Amino acid sequence: MNGEAVFPERDEIRIEAVLHALADPVRLDVVRQLARSGEVACGALDVSVSKSTLTHHLRTLREAGVTVSRQQGTIRLQSLRRKDLDELFPGLLDGVLAARH
Amino acid sequence: MNGEAVFPERDEIRIEAVLHALADPVRLDVVRQLARSGEVACGALDVSVSKSTLTHHLRTLREAGVTVSRQQGTIRLQSLRRKDLDELFPGLLDGVLAARH
Repeated sequence: MNGEAVFPERDEIRIEAVLHALADPVRLDVVRQLARSGEVACGALDVSVSKSTLTHHLRTLREAGVTVSRQQGTIRLQSLRRKDLDELFPGLLDGVLAARH
Repeated sequence: MNGEAVFPERDEIRIEAVLHALADPVRLDVVRQLARSGEVACGALDVSVSKSTLTHHLRTLREAGVTVSRQQGTIRLQSLRRKDLDELFPGLLDGVLAARH
């Protein structure tokens, strides 16, 4: 979780990458938690995977343009790019979050 | 394209499978064509892959619950399960179809 986080500009976000990033149960769970809670520290995410696996999933979400992260002191906060995603793909995120399973 | 096509009941459709099925440029292109045209014969789909590759992609879409197919004489017609998807994941398909890239 060190170094500058890299994420695409809004106009570089591609639908295939977003869909791929969301098509995983752990990443989808992270997205649901961020949708509920806003900014969340990596350590506060409730997931059943190792820290290194979570780091990998968070990178996939970030590089696809689904999330951004920012450093605040010693913690890194994750949040959804809801505004960008809603503008680019109106309804997509709501539809995904509406899924019961 | 022979034999009975297998596809999940509405309540068996899972969001991860739908997102995975949509997260591919060829399959997404097929979905766009079905969204525009309604029922389309496999042979009438405008794709740049071989027939066997297309068959594989159509199976992935069908097994995820994104499409259904039905035999009509010697041709097999594909269509989107728009009603099912809109009920399960309201907005998802519209958001995906709204993507410019």
